[in-house]
Amino acid sequence: MPGGLGVWLVGARGAVATTAVAGAAALARGLAPATGLVTARPPLDALKLAPLDRLVFGGHDVVDSPPEATLDTLVAGGVLPQALVAPGGPVREAVREAAGRVRPGSALGAAAPVAARATWTLERREPDLARVVERLRSDMARFVDQVGVDRAVVVHLASTEPAGGDVHPACADLARLRRAVASDDRSLPASVLYALAALEAGLPYVNFTPSAGNAVEALQGLALDRGVPHMGRDGKTGETLLKSVLAPLFAARNLRVLSWSGFNLLGNADGETLTDPAALEAKTRTKRADLAALLDGQAPHTTVGIDFVPSLGDWKTAWDHVHFEGFLGTRMSLQFTWQGCDSALAAPLVLDLARLADLAARRGERGLMPHLACFFKQPLGVDRHDFAGQFQMLLDYAAAVRAGT
Amino acid sequence: MPGGLGVWLVGARGAVATTAVAGAAALARGLAPATGLVTARPPLDALKLAPLDRLVFGGHDVVDSPPEATLDTLVAGGVLPQALVAPGGPVREAVREAAGRVRPGSALGAAAPVAARATWTLERREPDLARVVERLRSDMARFVDQVGVDRAVVVHLASTEPAGGDVHPACADLARLRRAVASDDRSLPASVLYALAALEAGLPYVNFTPSAGNAVEALQGLALDRGVPHMGRDGKTGETLLKSVLAPLFAARNLRVLSWSGFNLLGNADGETLTDPAALEAKTRTKRADLAALLDGQAPHTTVGIDFVPSLGDWKTAWDHVHFEGFLGTRMSLQFTWQGCDSALAAPLVLDLARLADLAARRGERGLMPHLACFFKQPLGVDRHDFAGQFQMLLDYAAAVRAGT
Amino acid sequence: MPGGLGVWLVGARGAVATTAVAGAAALARGLAPATGLVTARPPLDALKLAPLDRLVFGGHDVVDSPPEATLDTLVAGGVLPQALVAPGGPVREAVREAAGRVRPGSALGAAAPVAARATWTLERREPDLARVVERLRSDMARFVDQVGVDRAVVVHLASTEPAGGDVHPACADLARLRRAVASDDRSLPASVLYALAALEAGLPYVNFTPSAGNAVEALQGLALDRGVPHMGRDGKTGETLLKSVLAPLFAARNLRVLSWSGFNLLGNADGETLTDPAALEAKTRTKRADLAALLDGQAPHTTVGIDFVPSLGDWKTAWDHVHFEGFLGTRMSLQFTWQGCDSALAAPLVLDLARLADLAARRGERGLMPHLACFFKQPLGVDRHDFAGQFQMLLDYAAAVRAGT
Amino acid sequence: MPGGLGVWLVGARGAVATTAVAGAAALARGLAPATGLVTARPPLDALKLAPLDRLVFGGHDVVDSPPEATLDTLVAGGVLPQALVAPGGPVREAVREAAGRVRPGSALGAAAPVAARATWTLERREPDLARVVERLRSDMARFVDQVGVDRAVVVHLASTEPAGGDVHPACADLARLRRAVASDDRSLPASVLYALAALEAGLPYVNFTPSAGNAVEALQGLALDRGVPHMGRDGKTGETLLKSVLAPLFAARNLRVLSWSGFNLLGNADGETLTDPAALEAKTRTKRADLAALLDGQAPHTTVGIDFVPSLGDWKTAWDHVHFEGFLGTRMSLQFTWQGCDSALAAPLVLDLARLADLAARRGERGLMPHLACFFKQPLGVDRHDFAGQFQMLLDYAAAVRAGT
Repeated sequence: MPGGLGVWLVGARGAVATTAVAGAAALARGLAPATGLVTARPPLDALKLAPLDRLVFGGHDVVDSPPEATLDTLVAGGVLPQALVAPGGPVREAVREAAGRVRPGSALGAAAPVAARATWTLERREPDLARVVERLRSDMARFVDQVGVDRAVVVHLASTEPAGGDVHPACADLARLRRAVASDDRSLPASVLYALAALEAGLPYVNFTPSAGNAVEALQGLALDRGVPHMGRDGKTGETLLKSVLAPLFAARNLRVLSWSGFNLLGNADGETLTDPAALEAKTRTKRADLAALLDGQAPHTTVGIDFVPSLGDWKTAWDHVHFEGFLGTRMSLQFTWQGCDSALAAPLVLDLARLADLAARRGERGLMPHLACFFKQPLGVDRHDFAGQFQMLLDYAAAVRAGT
Repeated sequence: MPGGLGVWLVGARGAVATTAVAGAAALARGLAPATGLVTARPPLDALKLAPLDRLVFGGHDVVDSPPEATLDTLVAGGVLPQALVAPGGPVREAVREAAGRVRPGSALGAAAPVAARATWTLERREPDLARVVERLRSDMARFVDQVGVDRAVVVHLASTEPAGGDVHPACADLARLRRAVASDDRSLPASVLYALAALEAGLPYVNFTPSAGNAVEALQGLALDRGVPHMGRDGKTGETLLKSVLAPLFAARNLRVLSWSGFNLLGNADGETLTDPAALEAKTRTKRADLAALLDGQAPHTTVGIDFVPSLGDWKTAWDHVHFEGFLGTRMSLQFTWQGCDSALAAPLVLDLARLADLAARRGERGLMPHLACFFKQPLGVDRHDFAGQFQMLLDYAAAVRAGT
Repeated sequence: MPGGLGVWLVGARGAVATTAVAGAAALARGLAPATGLVTARPPLDALKLAPLDRLVFGGHDVVDSPPEATLDTLVAGGVLPQALVAPGGPVREAVREAAGRVRPGSALGAAAPVAARATWTLERREPDLARVVERLRSDMARFVDQVGVDRAVVVHLASTEPAGGDVHPACADLARLRRAVASDDRSLPASVLYALAALEAGLPYVNFTPSAGNAVEALQGLALDRGVPHMGRDGKTGETLLKSVLAPLFAARNLRVLSWSGFNLLGNADGETLTDPAALEAKTRTKRADLAALLDGQAPHTTVGIDFVPSLGDWKTAWDHVHFEGFLGTRMSLQFTWQGCDSALAAPLVLDLARLADLAARRGERGLMPHLACFFKQPLGVDRHDFAGQFQMLLDYAAAVRAGT
Repeated sequence: MPGGLGVWLVGARGAVATTAVAGAAALARGLAPATGLVTARPPLDALKLAPLDRLVFGGHDVVDSPPEATLDTLVAGGVLPQALVAPGGPVREAVREAAGRVRPGSALGAAAPVAARATWTLERREPDLARVVERLRSDMARFVDQVGVDRAVVVHLASTEPAGGDVHPACADLARLRRAVASDDRSLPASVLYALAALEAGLPYVNFTPSAGNAVEALQGLALDRGVPHMGRDGKTGETLLKSVLAPLFAARNLRVLSWSGFNLLGNADGETLTDPAALEAKTRTKRADLAALLDGQAPHTTVGIDFVPSLGDWKTAWDHVHFEGFLGTRMSLQFTWQGCDSALAAPLVLDLARLADLAARRGERGLMPHLACFFKQPLGVDRHDFAGQFQMLLDYAAAVRAGT
């Protein structure tokens, strides 16, 4: 039987992390149903996963703000019900406790707005990068001892780094990466340092963001050597999720997609980041590639537009327009409008991934976890992009686990 | 190698049938790409299916109108390109040839507007029902000889019968059905008579409509006895198709669907039929059941609204609104607007089903064809309602056929 | 200078009334901006209207429920901010005070669901209808004295009566109406009795609902005789409001509207009422007439669909689809989705109408107030249906008042 | 009684011009109803306007392509019905005749893609700018004589010039403008040269595009001196048209618009132009200013996104999302999707403007024509931006004309 599980969140003071901590506390106390939690639905609920009331949270962040402000913003924004996080109640208390276990992290390679408010970082406190990485690692390792859990997992939730796929060349090889750290090369991105630290600490690692993190070549062998399971990247929660069920339909029916235009209105930090044309162009490029994969190689015109609308807060409105051609050239269209709350969609998946990564570690799995592909926009090491096929992989895994194979 | 294939269309003068005949002619001559034809995409295109240039069409109908009028309506409505069906061209010629092979059918049990214009029926010409059924059967059987094909399939495309699932009690048992025919019981619906005739003639039968047809218990054993494959019912072309990819997403992610409201604007004969409250209520009931199946048993509020908008012609606009609850009770929504051309969506599937039913017959399959579930709103004998799972069944079948199993 | 103004709300325990009372209290104390209040914008804010901090509320209702429940529902439904109506705060206190001044009313002619919960009515307490009307009148009259205001207005907010336009024949003439009351004819609808009582009491009267109320012929002369201004009916807050700005555009540009289909999802009591086919048919008929008026006589196909979606609560989602024809027969479309909160849209208009009706009374106006047409779906005595023209009437009135004419 | 009217179109080979010419021919022969033509609806149809069967077309363009190609594109794109422009028919003949009267124009200051295909220009043929302007003028003047009409008007329909409002400094003053022409300053934009030429020729001038044209200060006095009426700019046909009816509603109801996000999908040349970031930024700036004017000074967040989707051709799909705040801070939204055919929306307005400008000239009006504001996105010399108010100005003008004032 699984005992206590430590969950170390990178970006622990953010909206998603705070919602995850509050939600785990609420569910553990029966204050809310487990809606949105994939591991609470059959057949996944039959796996021997860490119980929600045995999760203990800590993490890194680069700001030292009180958790109250984040909670109030989440309540005002309609993400958390006021009553659930009432002052003096157990949920608010759980968030406060977790906040007490947050340690300064790293903002190397962060986007400009993040860097500007990152006043609480290790790179300001430690003499060199080697010491920064060591502190990241030891914070994670000590957490397990301090809170008295059996084991822990690391989930990366920090703000997206602008570099996208063009990471530091040293990331191509573990030896070079180690040398770059040793030579205090501060152009290395923090996400890779966190992943390195987690694997060195022997902790399962999940990258919920588009940042490089554990995707780099240098870390693949390390994970296998250390016997650690890991996965990523970029949690699939909104428009891409819909695309990954809708696009395969067009391919299955041999309909020709002429264009797929997406327009996203969002008011949170992610939206602000995408006002940067480079970040937007990177995002568009990725989406184009994904679409081709979902459409069996069709390469329709596709664009993604972003409007950062502060009044929307954590609520994203996405409008997609698909123009397609059917029999004898007839042109038809599909439009959809998705109005979702980003943190409420992401937070339960963070809990799912923590529990499933822990299960994999207990089962002795190492390296990438392809059965978790359905959680990610860019599932590492997995070619399937259609959600239904990816979800079937998870069901197959669950069946195999239960069958004891 | 498959030779010529006869395709006998019930409702042969309608928009879907005419589009199918025109489309087959256009594709056979390379005048249009095979967009929308599932059997033209890998891996299905590798099956030994009847070539499109070897299809020969005939059928039953209950009106004796010239094909010109239908073609002109389809051109004016943007379903068929003017240039493709230019007077004197091969496509128009093919439609005219097929029209020359149409024989009077039966409108027993038809909805009032259909009955009103059904002036060209066997029940007006034959003394009793036994002779009507015999004529239906012999028309189908003689067609094979007359046009010199190796074999034929029957596809039912006639207007929806209002009875829905509440068919004549005699349909529960073959002996009783035969007695009802013998006693000239004209409350039997035509769709069942057509299916009976096809099976008696030993021809594979596909029901593309919601009418009873081959769904009745009485015919299941007959198909097995005669060694005939058959399948239905109700072609899945629009809103339900989308529902069958979107609803499983909510279930997979453990999101709670609070309501699913659909509103359909349509201007063709189907729309007119649904202005009948009884037909609409039957449709709503069916959709509710389907939704529960797609949502792993969730039973959200659901309604379907219909507005018969004559100006839209063959173009359907469907707006769906899904209200759902996520983590910690957060309420979100998805809306979609589907603007599709009914005949252009249905016609290629008619060709697919004819070719696949023929393949099954040549392979000695008999009874229901569950691997064709992805083509139907209510796939007979199949519990899976999610499109992705149904399509996988077709892919698995294709792989098995190619592997020679 | 205007002093205190009493506002007597019929349906005083409902969502709209409660929101209006809470809102007036909040605005009076500077706890919220006056967004949504038409009389707070120039040039209407320059009129000598009753100040918001001098409004005193009372009213009739047919249930005797505590105001707490309504407030909690409004907070849970996202209509009122939790912080604004915190226990012990002045806004909650104001709602409680107003609730203390509510008297039992009448539910004669109410829809079945309303009648079922109407346990607190005068018809149960008084021996005959004459006494009921007298109680309604004296409650209103005494309110002015008891709360120490200079004068009062009556605003009708009770649930829609199913009769629609087909009211009791006695309503065609004042003498007949009085005889029907005297003969205890309980088939008279309550809305007419309330209007009669208000006019008899000499109080300005506004009908914010589709019920008959002051629209009947019998009351027109009475209002003139008593020198009382009055207006109605049916507050224009959502889909119809949009229609009254969009439809004139098509007419102005000589575009031919082929169809206008509306579909409304709503979860509150209004939605429940419209699940009654008769109520829905009445609504559809009205909407069709309005559309023709807005389109300079065009009579396109039009339908209104309703889906009562309990999970939406006070939030209405309306989807409209307009199919139209332009130059040389080109067919185009406009769709809109309106997501509005009914009570938040209606409540400020209730305050506006109370203040403007009071101004009219102080100015000695009597009979209908056509300058208030822009607030109503069916403005009594006004032919203009376009919102812009109606709003100009209000601006012209304001200019005339300020010019002292 | 008005006799023949020459209509000189700048950009005469484009889609809008060709649709206008074809439409006028079709209407003159009774082959299509006058839908979309504002001057065909009451009360404007009662004005003594040039009859449609007396319009004669000519114009300038910078390419020398045959009209067949444009017609075929318009038919394929669903703008013109095939049957209307059948070979040998009168409509195609009318288009061909008009094409025979097109003369080489100027592409000075054109956007890069336009400049690239502008092979048929006066600047290639004439030695200097003075001669270019003189040729533009004399082409217009001679047209009147050659086709035997009483008089003519000039309508500018050429591709948008990128400069936007930042035109050549010489445009601030007529004397400077003349000197710049005399000194062969080829940085002057063609739109200004066309306007100069028209006014010099004494012809009424209408600018249907966003280019500078007659908006520049230098030409205001000239028009008055020559006694010529003129107006512009930028025909209001789609999203802005809707905005100009919807935004005033929010202002009238004192609702606070938090954001107005627009996203346009378009596949024609206009869309291609807007893929240029500078052009897009200029467009966004203009739209922001317009919105503030429509909202009584509110300055919400607003952005306009563009996706150039070639498959859409002349069909524009615009999605707008309005986030707004109502009573007590309640946040609501309005979305609309507009699917319109640009040329079909613009072409009848070109005919309207030609006829109304001609009427003004015959009545001796000179300078700007504010009564035409409702046709333009940026009506020169008019502060009103709400469509309803602008349209009332046109109705008032019509009433005054008919009253003989």
